[in-house]
Amino acid sequence: MDVGFIGLGTMGRAMAANLLKAAHHVRVWNRSQEPVRALAGQGATACTSPTEAFQAGVVISMLADDAAVRRVLSEDVLANAPRSAIHVNMATISVALAKELAQVHAEHGLHYVAAPVFGRPDVAEAAKLNIVAAGEPRTLDHVAPLFEAMGQKTWRMGEEPYRANVVKLAGNFMLGCAIEAMAEACAMAQAHDVAPADVLEMLTNSLFSSPVYKGYGGLIAEERYEPALFKLALALKDVRLALAAGEHGRVPMPFASVLRDNLLEAIAQGDGDKDFAALARVASRRAKLTER
Amino acid sequence: MDVGFIGLGTMGRAMAANLLKAAHHVRVWNRSQEPVRALAGQGATACTSPTEAFQAGVVISMLADDAAVRRVLSEDVLANAPRSAIHVNMATISVALAKELAQVHAEHGLHYVAAPVFGRPDVAEAAKLNIVAAGEPRTLDHVAPLFEAMGQKTWRMGEEPYRANVVKLAGNFMLGCAIEAMAEACAMAQAHDVAPADVLEMLTNSLFSSPVYKGYGGLIAEERYEPALFKLALALKDVRLALAAGEHGRVPMPFASVLRDNLLEAIAQGDGDKDFAALARVASRRAKLTER
Amino acid sequence: MDVGFIGLGTMGRAMAANLLKAAHHVRVWNRSQEPVRALAGQGATACTSPTEAFQAGVVISMLADDAAVRRVLSEDVLANAPRSAIHVNMATISVALAKELAQVHAEHGLHYVAAPVFGRPDVAEAAKLNIVAAGEPRTLDHVAPLFEAMGQKTWRMGEEPYRANVVKLAGNFMLGCAIEAMAEACAMAQAHDVAPADVLEMLTNSLFSSPVYKGYGGLIAEERYEPALFKLALALKDVRLALAAGEHGRVPMPFASVLRDNLLEAIAQGDGDKDFAALARVASRRAKLTER
Amino acid sequence: MDVGFIGLGTMGRAMAANLLKAAHHVRVWNRSQEPVRALAGQGATACTSPTEAFQAGVVISMLADDAAVRRVLSEDVLANAPRSAIHVNMATISVALAKELAQVHAEHGLHYVAAPVFGRPDVAEAAKLNIVAAGEPRTLDHVAPLFEAMGQKTWRMGEEPYRANVVKLAGNFMLGCAIEAMAEACAMAQAHDVAPADVLEMLTNSLFSSPVYKGYGGLIAEERYEPALFKLALALKDVRLALAAGEHGRVPMPFASVLRDNLLEAIAQGDGDKDFAALARVASRRAKLTER
Repeated sequence: MDVGFIGLGTMGRAMAANLLKAAHHVRVWNRSQEPVRALAGQGATACTSPTEAFQAGVVISMLADDAAVRRVLSEDVLANAPRSAIHVNMATISVALAKELAQVHAEHGLHYVAAPVFGRPDVAEAAKLNIVAAGEPRTLDHVAPLFEAMGQKTWRMGEEPYRANVVKLAGNFMLGCAIEAMAEACAMAQAHDVAPADVLEMLTNSLFSSPVYKGYGGLIAEERYEPALFKLALALKDVRLALAAGEHGRVPMPFASVLRDNLLEAIAQGDGDKDFAALARVASRRAKLTER
Repeated sequence: MDVGFIGLGTMGRAMAANLLKAAHHVRVWNRSQEPVRALAGQGATACTSPTEAFQAGVVISMLADDAAVRRVLSEDVLANAPRSAIHVNMATISVALAKELAQVHAEHGLHYVAAPVFGRPDVAEAAKLNIVAAGEPRTLDHVAPLFEAMGQKTWRMGEEPYRANVVKLAGNFMLGCAIEAMAEACAMAQAHDVAPADVLEMLTNSLFSSPVYKGYGGLIAEERYEPALFKLALALKDVRLALAAGEHGRVPMPFASVLRDNLLEAIAQGDGDKDFAALARVASRRAKLTER
Repeated sequence: MDVGFIGLGTMGRAMAANLLKAAHHVRVWNRSQEPVRALAGQGATACTSPTEAFQAGVVISMLADDAAVRRVLSEDVLANAPRSAIHVNMATISVALAKELAQVHAEHGLHYVAAPVFGRPDVAEAAKLNIVAAGEPRTLDHVAPLFEAMGQKTWRMGEEPYRANVVKLAGNFMLGCAIEAMAEACAMAQAHDVAPADVLEMLTNSLFSSPVYKGYGGLIAEERYEPALFKLALALKDVRLALAAGEHGRVPMPFASVLRDNLLEAIAQGDGDKDFAALARVASRRAKLTER
Repeated sequence: MDVGFIGLGTMGRAMAANLLKAAHHVRVWNRSQEPVRALAGQGATACTSPTEAFQAGVVISMLADDAAVRRVLSEDVLANAPRSAIHVNMATISVALAKELAQVHAEHGLHYVAAPVFGRPDVAEAAKLNIVAAGEPRTLDHVAPLFEAMGQKTWRMGEEPYRANVVKLAGNFMLGCAIEAMAEACAMAQAHDVAPADVLEMLTNSLFSSPVYKGYGGLIAEERYEPALFKLALALKDVRLALAAGEHGRVPMPFASVLRDNLLEAIAQGDGDKDFAALARVASRRAKLTER
């Protein structure tokens, strides 16, 4: 398939590379040129503007946040896109922007799909992402081969694109909760001289034997917070989006509030560039466990 | 093996029955007589006092809470136990009482093992409990056949018995956190017209594909809170024990505090006898989702 | 003094009226015409645009929120203002916008003062506002007669205008905390059959004998939440601004997080148009006290 | 009046001294002898047991906590008290113990009054305590002269003694909330380079011009946390009692939960012996303000 790819950060470049491996023709655009050159070396066509990438008729975007989406996918770009082009937005954005984009694309006669993903860069490279997709069924069918090249499974969430974003935010929020729960449990255990590794070894191989608990539990047990696969400061962004979605729906989310407060503390203490798992250091620091 | 069994609630009777099935000789005692008679019908020997049960030389107790342990396993009972008898306490009790019991048993020349379990009554019946055990290695070796008859796996946590209790409290606290996280995520999603069942179907079959999330997630998705396998009011007891263990170690546990507040609300609203999963109704009620 | 006044909501019209009473010449502008006509009847000069109001050389604005400030005080208005004009912004706005406005005004050669106020409409009418002002000392001196006509006291907070906004947000946050503290205390008391009125009568006439506690405590004791002098939904806006200021400074504010969650619940339950004091209904509803 | 006084800590000795000054005959008992000797030097009669103090017919107790009350005012002491003796318990104890004591005294034919006080040791010395009293009106009338000698005002809360304890716990909880609110507000301000002293100067002399805010606000502004007039570790005890009263009444108290967590952090960080106002250091430390 002929496909444009906009946004070649750590995630985007891995995903675009997998499209190339699956023999799709990929036209890539990115603000900085280095990843464009790298992918061109793997067979992609370099574009000089988002508009050029849209000429493929199907375009995937994987941008950092709401602001980047607004900046790159401007009214202008959408107005100049080929009629009936399909835009698959795989970034984690706000529910509010998701709703707005659905409308704006419709006004321009474009098809819009939201397809945020679960998985860190290593998972993206292995083409094992979990893709949560929402949009018109026919459009989803059309882009299914692209998802297959990038992920292990696609979960359809209905016609309205924002629905996929809701599920993505719910998932990242629950991920944060899992980390905080392990952090508090480990701090409590450690204060009684029981090693976090022992607690987590038991629990993440029985009741909590899921990828999130095993993965992040392992990082916490080993206090291995660098290099960051999912930066703590970016995780705050996602918790903020979950809180905003809750606020918009007038839903109190006390766990999300605790996460927000603790992530702010982590950043204030200098851990913003460490892995999301470094949130565990907050519980430990508050109880002064490291110095006992 | 000749073994006494004290405390035949829903959990205890299932565990004692499995000991009988494994051809152990079991002497049972319980405050009320009905479960004693039932197990006698399956081959157990009925005892008229805890002291009598201790004559087996190895005794398991599975009592409701700290108060019941203090009441049933009085100084008197311990003083009259056979020298070098082994007491395996499988109940969920406080870390403070666990430490106290270790000392008291030592003073009476008795061996004390803490072996709290993870698993609801159906799991106990299926002999699939996860048993967390701590005590002298030789004593643990000695009672290993009993654990094998009741559980799928025994996790050793060291010599000091209270260590097993710490892990048990950590686990039940993390279980509560998982329910609350799903509850808030679902309330947020529902406020945006995304069905909790859709959110949970996706997440508990991918990132969160562990027994706790699948089990409780299923109950939440179906709003199936009765009959209770783990009563919400009892879950509050366990959260309180985790908070107490944290307080003793001077560890702030903001998630545990939220759990406590929300469980109180659930009980005030009449859900104390429903399943722990009914905690999810708090997030939903606060946002008035049911009436939207 | 010749002064423009932009924004004639409940607060603004009372403040402008007091300027007229103090014999200042007031040029008023508002989006809707009714309050303009009313003040013209009291001697004010009606303006047809914000730009016209700026011709006075000194202009006060009292707009609803950040969005209204951006909309009304556009680049255009500032560019057309007389050179060296003074703009006194008395609204409660974000710290971020306050910093931005200081810079934008400087770029246009205008003097900018932030002077948010404490006091509800009845206090504004009585010219008893507490005014928190920050800006160049000479400019503050110049507008001091205006403050004297509207308030009981002006508190200077330094040269940088945003400093006054920080204090205003701190104050409104503390006000919310006072209400929530009374709410929880009263709910606890009521659950033990002690009337909230008795608790508050004692405490707000001794340890907590300050205007905030007496005023809001009285509303809570009498459950008198309508008519709203300070609408609960607007209070959420201010708590959000405090949280944003905290987030910008990487400061965890767990009390503010609780306020936010509880205000969302209040709004979800239909109390958004009631007085801020109706926050007390949340604690009471969660414990189901009204139906006991 | 002939009156016994049991418990001569910092508060008790100041209160007993004021009774002496008001020409009452005071029989004093304390576990340690130093304060007994000091008061004997001021005219008191030293007792060798609580029972002896009860011989006065009216006895005031001012003990540290629930445990001390149970230990000192044993069944034995109450059984040996003169028939119809009056016991005025001025300590801060749990609502549960207050209810239990009312019943136990009744069974022994004794009159029981709960009269906890607001005020730190300096206030006790100045005989300016606020006394919250509950009990039979005739008994309260009888002991009124004693209250007059110790306090500035007595607030009657009804017949059932525990009602006074509810109000006392509500008040101390609200005090903690006031400190935490100031702490978070100041941390937010400080992160924007606005001095806490400036914020508090303004707010505690206007909206929050009450003794609690002025007193504790002053300590926070000056970071003067030693010597402690009300030790932080003791404040945790009172917050715990408020939480217990809430839990008993099934009342969620999220502010109290935050207080508990933050007080635990303060103690873990070594501030347990500092003044309650040192709670403010938690907000500051979490945001790493001191090192910015």
